[in-house]
Parts: sequence; C-alpha cells; structure tokens
Amino acid sequence: MKELQVDVAVIGGGTAGLGAYRAAKRLTPNVVMIEGGPYGTTCARVGCMPSKLLIAAAEAVHQIERAPGFGIHPQGDIKINGREVMDRVKRERDRFVGFVLEGVDEIPQQDKIEGYARFIDDNTLQVGDHTRIQAKRIVIASGSRPAWPAAWNSLGDRLVINDDVFDWDDLPSSVAVFGPGVIGIELGQALHRLGVKVTMFGVGGGVGPLTDGAIRQYAAATLNTEFYLDADASVELIERRGDTVFIRYQDRDGQVQEISVDYLLAATGRRPNVDNIGLENTSLKLDERGVPFADRLTMQTSVAHIFVAGMPVISFRCYTKPAIKRVLPVKMRVRSRKYLPACAVAQFQWFSQTRKSRWWAQPIVN
Amino acid sequence: MKELQVDVAVIGGGTAGLGAYRAAKRLTPNVVMIEGGPYGTTCARVGCMPSKLLIAAAEAVHQIERAPGFGIHPQGDIKINGREVMDRVKRERDRFVGFVLEGVDEIPQQDKIEGYARFIDDNTLQVGDHTRIQAKRIVIASGSRPAWPAAWNSLGDRLVINDDVFDWDDLPSSVAVFGPGVIGIELGQALHRLGVKVTMFGVGGGVGPLTDGAIRQYAAATLNTEFYLDADASVELIERRGDTVFIRYQDRDGQVQEISVDYLLAATGRRPNVDNIGLENTSLKLDERGVPFADRLTMQTSVAHIFVAGMPVISFRCYTKPAIKRVLPVKMRVRSRKYLPACAVAQFQWFSQTRKSRWWAQPIVN
Repeated sequence: MKELQVDVAVIGGGTAGLGAYRAAKRLTPNVVMIEGGPYGTTCARVGCMPSKLLIAAAEAVHQIERAPGFGIHPQGDIKINGREVMDRVKRERDRFVGFVLEGVDEIPQQDKIEGYARFIDDNTLQVGDHTRIQAKRIVIASGSRPAWPAAWNSLGDRLVINDDVFDWDDLPSSVAVFGPGVIGIELGQALHRLGVKVTMFGVGGGVGPLTDGAIRQYAAATLNTEFYLDADASVELIERRGDTVFIRYQDRDGQVQEISVDYLLAATGRRPNVDNIGLENTSLKLDERGVPFADRLTMQTSVAHIFVAGMPVISFRCYTKPAIKRVLPVKMRVRSRKYLPACAVAQFQWFSQTRKSRWWAQPIVN
Repeated sequence: MKELQVDVAVIGGGTAGLGAYRAAKRLTPNVVMIEGGPYGTTCARVGCMPSKLLIAAAEAVHQIERAPGFGIHPQGDIKINGREVMDRVKRERDRFVGFVLEGVDEIPQQDKIEGYARFIDDNTLQVGDHTRIQAKRIVIASGSRPAWPAAWNSLGDRLVINDDVFDWDDLPSSVAVFGPGVIGIELGQALHRLGVKVTMFGVGGGVGPLTDGAIRQYAAATLNTEFYLDADASVELIERRGDTVFIRYQDRDGQVQEISVDYLLAATGRRPNVDNIGLENTSLKLDERGVPFADRLTMQTSVAHIFVAGMPVISFRCYTKPAIKRVLPVKMRVRSRKYLPACAVAQFQWFSQTRKSRWWAQPIVN
C-alpha cells in the first residue's frame, strides 16, 4: 500500500476537478488528482460539447428549410446522410476531447492517482487497494451520472442515455425522449431536425430550464409545432418488443396512442456521484440526497477543509460553461457567483439568470 | 424669425443626436434637437442594420453550400430570387426604422426643430431661415456621409453608395466594389454570395478594420477564395459605357484586365458633416480635416460648452453598436471608453479591440 501525504487531494479529474487541481497547484506543489474513469471530462466526451455538434448538423438542415424566407430557394429534397452526420459529430468530439487530454498529459504523472477514492475519515482517502492518502484539504469533484427509473433496465440496449447517442454510427428512425429538460430538448430537437421521428414525454410540466409557467407553456407550444411533446404525460406502458420499444400513452387530448420506437432516450436527470465515496465515514453534514451541505460562494462544506466543486453541488453551471466557451459564439461571463447562468441551446437559445437559480441543488449554509 | 433660449441644443437627430437629446432631457426640460433630413438614423436606414439583413440572406445561401460538411446534402441548385431577397431586406429595414421613428414620435413637438443648423457664434445657432437658438450648451451630432472621388460623378446612376444598395428592387448581375473597408467587405461579400459577380479594389492594402500586416494578408487571401480582391489595385480607367461601368486594371499578376459591370459601389470612406455648419463662426479649435478637437473621454471640445458625439468624432463605434444590439446575437458591451470595439460582419466576424483604435479619427486633447 502506497502512502501519500498531500496538501490538497482532488476527487475527480473532470472539468471541476481539473479546475480545482490547477487552482490548488498555484498555491502549493503538493496536490493530487484522483480519477477512476477515462479522462476527457463529461462535458467534452458526452455532454455539452458533442451535443452542440449534433445541433450544428441539425441547424444545417433547419437553415435550408428556412432559406425561402430570405428569397433563397433550394431546389429538390434534402438528403440527410446519418453516417456522415454522426461521423462528423464523433470526429469533432474527439478533437475536443483531445484538447482536454493534452492538458491532462501536461500534469506530472505523480500528481495523477488512478482509481476510485473513498473517504476513510475526514482527512484520509483510500484509492482502490493501492494507495492511501492523508490530505490537509480535500475537494469532492466526483461529478454526476445519468439517472433513470430502474424499470427501464428491462429495455436492454434499446434504452439509451446521452452518452450512447454520441456513440451511434448512424441516426435511428425514431426515438422517444423521456425528460424535456435541457439535455432532452437539445438532443430531441436536434434529432427531429435530422429527420428522426421524435416523441417527447415529461412529468410535471417542466420544460427546459424554465421556471415561469407562462413561458413554459409558450415553449411547449412552440416545440409542439415541430414534434409531439407532452410535458406532463400520462404513459401507461413501456416495454421492449423485439428490437423496438413499445409505448402506450394518453395524448394531450386524452386519446390512447401506441407507438413503437427504435430507442427510449432517458434524459430524466443526473445523480451526484456521492454514494460510493465513503461520505458515511466523514463528519460531513449531508442533505436528504446524501450531498454535503456547502456554502454556495466558497463551496466549503461543514468540515472546514473539505470542499465540493462541479456537478455534485451545481447540476448545471459546470455543465454548460466550458461548452459555451469552446463551442458557441457567445461567451457568457459569470461575473459573480451570485448570478448563475442557465441555458439550453435549442429553439430559443433559452437563457435564464437568477439570483437563486434552481440549478443550485444545494441548500445554503451561512 | 423664431427666437429660442435653451439649455442644450443638439445638432442632428441620428443615433448620437437622439442619445445626446435623451441624456440631456434627464437633466433639464429645456433641450432641442435639430434635424434637417429624414428621421430614422443612418444606422437603421442605410447602415449597419440593413447591411446585416443583406448578410442574413447571403448567409442562407452560404449555409446551404456548407451543409455537406455536416452530412446534409441539398439536392439540385439554389435559386436566388433577387426581388424576394431585396423585398425582405427592405421590409425588415422599414421595421427597424419604424422602431426609431416610434421613439422620435414620443419626443415633444416643440423639442424637434426642422432644418439645418449653422453656428452664428459659440452660443447661437441659425436653423434654416426660420429659427434662431441661443444655447447654453451645444452638441454637434451631425453625422457623416459617404465620400468618393469627384471624377466618378460622370458615372451617373451607375455610381452607387451603400444607401442606394438598400433601395434596389432586384440584385444586379455584377458590381465593382471600390474600398475593401468595413462597408465594402460586408456588402461585397454578401452580394457575391447572393450570386452577384463582385470585383473588389482597394488602395494602399487596407482590408476591413485590420491594422496588422500579416492578418491583412491572410484576410485578403481568404476573401480571394471567394471573389477577386486587390487591396492595392492599379486601376487605369473607369468610365461609363452605355448602361455599364467599364474598368481597366492591372491584376495582381500585372496583366491588364478589362471588365464591364452594372454598378460601381463606392465604399471609399465617410466624411464628417462639419463643413456646412458654420464652425468658422465659432472659436472651436479644428484639426486639419475641419473637425473640432475633442477629449476622447468627455467628448468636450476646446470650447467648454460645445461637445461632439457620434460620427463626426468616431467613425466607427456609433456605426456598429446599435446594429449589434438589435440585429446580432452577440451583444458587445463597451465597458469603458478606453476600449473601443471595431468589427465587421463578414467571413471572419472580424473584431478588434484596442486602446487606441484607429477608428478614433480624433487627436486627443488632454
């Protein structure tokens, strides 16, 4: 068993972890970053960056369809080559990931600890079965992962999440998107515009990052001019039948409808990766979801030397900011942590900025 | 002769004049704005706003041409309906102008003086032959107008400036653009993409707002992949022949070329409207162009109660900012007058930001 004494240990090598590692390195050389999965960040690999690439292809179709309004008349049909679409998405995605990996490569080998970390106590981390780390300060930047109802696991490979979409070699014929949140709308609208038959279902009426009832309704009505969306759907049956997913639901008029689709895309939220890192061995105060309480300005937890960063504490901000910097023409600047931008890149370029954004998943200690 | 005593008189009812009028009205009710031409602002009527509309149509063509890179293959040709293109440009232009006119309509009638103003002395303005104004403070916001070599006047209606382009009912077949500055490149590239045969000539090598030699060369080379541009051209003959403009020039390889085009578009700079406002009757210190020296931060001239605003003093800033706010997705914020944005909306979305932008046409007093 290797034993390390460090000033700062960062759990997670994603966008937040890399940021925390680099910030700490400016203050002390004695920092380690612990990562159990592949480097490259959720954002660049399967998140906000490749979704913008899919949207770019969808936008190419949409622009052609809108051209007559400018006096420009394409003659003939638009042929969408799904393999070429996905090939470009993955090629550019790999390029983006490459930039991240270049940065990771520059980090000294001894600072990168491979494996999954677990707290032994407030100052001690166990990584796999090979390393024990005594850390004066610890940053939890363990990220999040998609979550979906367990019953859907019976759909097997017909159940997909955003990660899977970016591994497709071709576009499918039809997809039912569950969850008209940011991810669901971005991917769902893009797939629709790329010729995929999209049907979208939600629970409770939420649409994108919108909180205002009237604006939600307007958004839902506008999206419905493109594809079927019921943000408060009544779905009666979801089951696998052969290589398709069979769905029976009551439509917005109360009529029972039945559809068979190639895939069910679960965009039903993300779950913070705090359930397998031994928080029970610490004296951290946790909320009902098991996430450490943290000051929203300093990210400091109830244990003064432990901090949180990124998705465990903020579902959205870390998710969009790097993408916006790299992929989009608009660079949103977060001038103060008091104001949080939340955006989705779809029909409206939705953007909300609030003092107490609902994307702050955390109660506030102070 | 009507006699008025006012706290502030603003010469010009364009973007800068309206801004100055409104700012002054917040401090005193006794303000007048003097305008001799049509209301609606250069920006909205014939400047940055309609040019973006023409660019939007050009972009629609360009997006279709680029779609195959995304795996999207439009079948058949693109038909560009010049009448529809120009109809939309003018329709939307009128809508933009309408917003400005709504604002002008809200200004009390007695504050709007119709006619051209001339200084009688440092505190007195004569408007037409009907009104004499004694003003404690005066703002010169008289704008600018296109300028071109007098010899070109022999081309008659075959000589056009940006104003004329936005009155076209249809697109011409061919245009020679003189002046690859911001206006020339924006309009020239847009017309090219809309199927107009464009040939572009400059003097001295300037390209867009660029000042760096290497970047200029790169820009010129990139634009040349679309249409012929010689930024330091040797033009031997320009003359009207029938309904066309005949041009003989040496191309970049030294070969003599002859072309006939429908129009010569003069984008050869703008001239401040300070030559007919009686500055010679004031004690203002003028530069060699006849423009009052002014402090670049306060816009105050050498006569403490006289100020300049907008194009007489800044060729570019006032020209682009309102357009960017209204037309473009990116809202550039000028946080400090020390930093001036200069941009052109074409191939590169050129943007330069410098402490001493060359768009400051003015020497600095302080």
